[in-house]
Amino acid sequence: MGSNYPRSVRCCLPLCVLTLEAAFILIFAFFTSYDTSPKDKKLLGTYQALQDFTIMAALGLGFLTSYLRRHGWSSVAFNLFTLALGVQWAVLLDGFLSQPFHGKVTIKLSSIRLATMSAMSVLISAGAVLGRANLVQLAVMALVEVTAFGAVRLTYKQVFKMDDHRSMTHIHVFAAYFGLTSAWCLSSSLPKEAKKEVQAEKVQMATSPSLFAMLGTLFLWMFWPSFNSALLDLPNEKKNAVFNTYYALAVSTVTATSVSALNHHQGKINVTDIHNAVLAGGVAVGASCHLISSPWIAMVLGLLAGLISIGGARCLSVCFNHVLEIQDPSGVHYTFGLPGLLGGFSYIVLIVLEASGNPGTGFMMLMDTGALSFALAMGLVSGLLTGFLLKLKIWKAPRAAKYFDDQAFWEFPHLAVGF
Amino acid sequence: MGSNYPRSVRCCLPLCVLTLEAAFILIFAFFTSYDTSPKDKKLLGTYQALQDFTIMAALGLGFLTSYLRRHGWSSVAFNLFTLALGVQWAVLLDGFLSQPFHGKVTIKLSSIRLATMSAMSVLISAGAVLGRANLVQLAVMALVEVTAFGAVRLTYKQVFKMDDHRSMTHIHVFAAYFGLTSAWCLSSSLPKEAKKEVQAEKVQMATSPSLFAMLGTLFLWMFWPSFNSALLDLPNEKKNAVFNTYYALAVSTVTATSVSALNHHQGKINVTDIHNAVLAGGVAVGASCHLISSPWIAMVLGLLAGLISIGGARCLSVCFNHVLEIQDPSGVHYTFGLPGLLGGFSYIVLIVLEASGNPGTGFMMLMDTGALSFALAMGLVSGLLTGFLLKLKIWKAPRAAKYFDDQAFWEFPHLAVGF
Amino acid sequence: MGSNYPRSVRCCLPLCVLTLEAAFILIFAFFTSYDTSPKDKKLLGTYQALQDFTIMAALGLGFLTSYLRRHGWSSVAFNLFTLALGVQWAVLLDGFLSQPFHGKVTIKLSSIRLATMSAMSVLISAGAVLGRANLVQLAVMALVEVTAFGAVRLTYKQVFKMDDHRSMTHIHVFAAYFGLTSAWCLSSSLPKEAKKEVQAEKVQMATSPSLFAMLGTLFLWMFWPSFNSALLDLPNEKKNAVFNTYYALAVSTVTATSVSALNHHQGKINVTDIHNAVLAGGVAVGASCHLISSPWIAMVLGLLAGLISIGGARCLSVCFNHVLEIQDPSGVHYTFGLPGLLGGFSYIVLIVLEASGNPGTGFMMLMDTGALSFALAMGLVSGLLTGFLLKLKIWKAPRAAKYFDDQAFWEFPHLAVGF
Repeated sequence: MGSNYPRSVRCCLPLCVLTLEAAFILIFAFFTSYDTSPKDKKLLGTYQALQDFTIMAALGLGFLTSYLRRHGWSSVAFNLFTLALGVQWAVLLDGFLSQPFHGKVTIKLSSIRLATMSAMSVLISAGAVLGRANLVQLAVMALVEVTAFGAVRLTYKQVFKMDDHRSMTHIHVFAAYFGLTSAWCLSSSLPKEAKKEVQAEKVQMATSPSLFAMLGTLFLWMFWPSFNSALLDLPNEKKNAVFNTYYALAVSTVTATSVSALNHHQGKINVTDIHNAVLAGGVAVGASCHLISSPWIAMVLGLLAGLISIGGARCLSVCFNHVLEIQDPSGVHYTFGLPGLLGGFSYIVLIVLEASGNPGTGFMMLMDTGALSFALAMGLVSGLLTGFLLKLKIWKAPRAAKYFDDQAFWEFPHLAVGF
Repeated sequence: MGSNYPRSVRCCLPLCVLTLEAAFILIFAFFTSYDTSPKDKKLLGTYQALQDFTIMAALGLGFLTSYLRRHGWSSVAFNLFTLALGVQWAVLLDGFLSQPFHGKVTIKLSSIRLATMSAMSVLISAGAVLGRANLVQLAVMALVEVTAFGAVRLTYKQVFKMDDHRSMTHIHVFAAYFGLTSAWCLSSSLPKEAKKEVQAEKVQMATSPSLFAMLGTLFLWMFWPSFNSALLDLPNEKKNAVFNTYYALAVSTVTATSVSALNHHQGKINVTDIHNAVLAGGVAVGASCHLISSPWIAMVLGLLAGLISIGGARCLSVCFNHVLEIQDPSGVHYTFGLPGLLGGFSYIVLIVLEASGNPGTGFMMLMDTGALSFALAMGLVSGLLTGFLLKLKIWKAPRAAKYFDDQAFWEFPHLAVGF
Repeated sequence: MGSNYPRSVRCCLPLCVLTLEAAFILIFAFFTSYDTSPKDKKLLGTYQALQDFTIMAALGLGFLTSYLRRHGWSSVAFNLFTLALGVQWAVLLDGFLSQPFHGKVTIKLSSIRLATMSAMSVLISAGAVLGRANLVQLAVMALVEVTAFGAVRLTYKQVFKMDDHRSMTHIHVFAAYFGLTSAWCLSSSLPKEAKKEVQAEKVQMATSPSLFAMLGTLFLWMFWPSFNSALLDLPNEKKNAVFNTYYALAVSTVTATSVSALNHHQGKINVTDIHNAVLAGGVAVGASCHLISSPWIAMVLGLLAGLISIGGARCLSVCFNHVLEIQDPSGVHYTFGLPGLLGGFSYIVLIVLEASGNPGTGFMMLMDTGALSFALAMGLVSGLLTGFLLKLKIWKAPRAAKYFDDQAFWEFPHLAVGF
């Protein structure tokens, strides 16, 4: 279809992936065993949280990026592939990096839950390179990003003495900037014409694909309280996290919808704003959801997150598209990046306000600022390295003319049926 | 984009909504606090029920009305907006109205769950004004209807001495007739031609939108047992509610599908019947689901609900459309109104049969009839008032020519891509 | 719409179905009662499992087969109808066949859960006759297949002394071969031209329907661990089942995606492969998921299942289509049949390896081989009988020219809007 010399992943993909799977199977065979502790009172709760995470990862993040007219199949299926691969590697890596390590990694329900969360960082970043990476590149990206995020979490645990919940706090910031720098690398060498071409009708909206994206948004919206609360142990912190996430999401939904209308000269709403900005509240409240003790703080955070997300999409996107030449078709920066930074700052402010007067306040503030900066820096640097890695010719990346096009990856029955 | 003088909500919507949000944040700041009771054994169960409700409200009711070819985006997104706004107000109102009130409203998981249920009454009513109300009107409607339904519930608790579950019983009847009278007000002043125009191809069926509506129906169908059982405390009543709802839904599905074929001269099924009537069983059994002690009663109710729902859609819709001039595009009357009335009557009959011979039977029957009539009357009256309120020019309602059209509300990329 | 002499189910369907429902209501009235045991610690867990099963059955299996351009409505709605009917009959049958039976069948949450699982066998088989059976035929098929599967389960319990979980093991093998032989019967008498016609553009892919099918696949994928683990009692077996299913699914997803690319001369992926083969891992691990004590075995099974499923779809489909003349549009054989057989064999191998050296090993192996063969044989024979039953003229089957066409079953507004 089209080019006489298509770049085919026919040999490359099965070779890489099956070798990788064989290696995984060998490592699992020699270094892992199942958890056989007899009693597990929280089995049901942990399983529910795992299911909620899986729904968010496979369905929510999959369909969130399915709004492109000609890229729906790839969005959803590539997302599932990346998730399945990322989780396997994340379980192994978490086991090896966790202390103490006694020759065998014990696989628990909670470790699969944690691994699903780590793999979600890859899925968020994959939204930034959407439509421009093939499956081999996504597999490479999954391996590198899970490793880099594992390193971040290990540093958090060892240096900053954080628990599981806190070490996951900056996942949105890390994943968003990882994705953005990767995307910058991928598109930096393209000729101007190719970029124009890509901007064409392929990234247009259409009704059904947008409804699928809305479905993804809704699943993320509905299960975000689980995402923010699942790793907390104390029932009161868990409850607070659910309350605050719920309120922040409600306010950011209302804010985003009305501010989106303010942006258009006829008061019309932009559908991409709705897909992205309604989630900003949940992201912004993520870091501090267990600490906030009154709904109004969560509501203010939700309001700010909605404003920042939509304001960023309007003001920064010009700068990003034309100056930095980063394409961010699915708005990763405005859904996860900026609200994540807001969440990081608000956490620092809250900690300082709570502990004001205590002797250790300054040190705590320094530590928390350091943790946020570390996530940001690691995201930028490892994303840049991954981007350069993904540009290697051996991965047989799709041509720019085939960007955002299912036909580059999928077998269509003799004549493609549009949509 | 048609008119040279479009009615834009550009200033109106953000002004109203952000002021409202600011007011909410202030009220929440001064009058609410989170529940901090240390132990909560039912945390997991309550959270699951809250999630089930959120899925029904955001996804089920959102997609249920997404079957119109050109109104899919609005159906889903406006539904989410209304839900997010309605829940905030319902939590506050429930807290202020509940006895005893000690200066501070304590926010529990169960109060958010109850508020989600109250907000669902708005979502049901919004189905009746579907395609004819803009976001400002929906926000006004949410505030008024949550308040009116709060008044109904307060009366039930104070006068009729009902518990939380019983006070929610007549939500379907209230919401359906509230919506229908609002819709009547909105359309009553339109010229004949405008109505004809609205009846045109915009309300036609198309495959994908109908599948989305089926998705919404399925989510409501699957989680209806949670809806009917979540507010019950005794495990046995909870189980009975689940059983009865399950059976009533199964029978109404089978009945609706086959009776729909009977209605067509070639035995073809109507897709709107399926969207609506399969749910009628769950609505009809709502009032008495905890009392019915044998599956066959629930099954008979499901059968009757299916028959009434489809019969009503065929016989009454002519009367409604042409005589009363109420447009009910999403069949709120046949999904929630008529089966809700059936449920109310069946509850009275069951109570009387159970207590026959006891001295207080007559009084109980009177009380229950009074409760049902009160919900119906409040729905009709407050719906009428809301309808007149919504007709005010300050809300900048869309023109009749733009009814049922996403283009009136949404920014489309230079050329609209049909579906 | 086409034929001047259409075969209408206008009288046939309501007559059959309402009579059946009336019979069900009578049987339920006289022979069943609700479970009223006061304490039920596992209520929440059982209800969650029931909900997960319902989601898999109504949503997952419904949308899995919705990828045909002109058959989406029928796929989803007929699936719901068959489920609602099948569950009612399965609850009754399970009650009557279970020992001891004391005049009254006690309906528990767990019996509805089991009945939903039995009804899923019908939904799987219905995928094989997809687009060629009307609602009356599906109702007949539901009654016969639930009965036949009940007989298989009774034999398993009585003769092979299996528990509930084990007796459900071979559901995929039974259902797949039941469906295939029924489909063979249905199409065996068609003239060659009719078959060609059916192969035309109606079975083509289109974007939105395929995304709906992906949605179904994802729901099955996400909840498959519940399917495999719900009937197990010991917490450790339950956990193992979840782990193994999760790993098998992850590996079969990765394998299927990459091997599908290997099959195409340009390295493009086939979307039907993705719909089907990603689930093969869950099917293959079903029989032995509670026994496998190390993830690598589950991963190897997932890998093999992915290979077999895609290999079968390429190599066997030619033989099936042209020699045996079995049409299997939704790939039931490759999703459920072959992986189910793989699962059965792997269970036997695992049992033998575990018990090697013990005196009873040979007998156990014989018993397990017997159980698998019995499921296969019963599926083939009862499917054949059902197929002949479905060919009777009294069911008013749709004409071959109307196969795979929603217009044969659904009322379209004067002009059909394609998709």
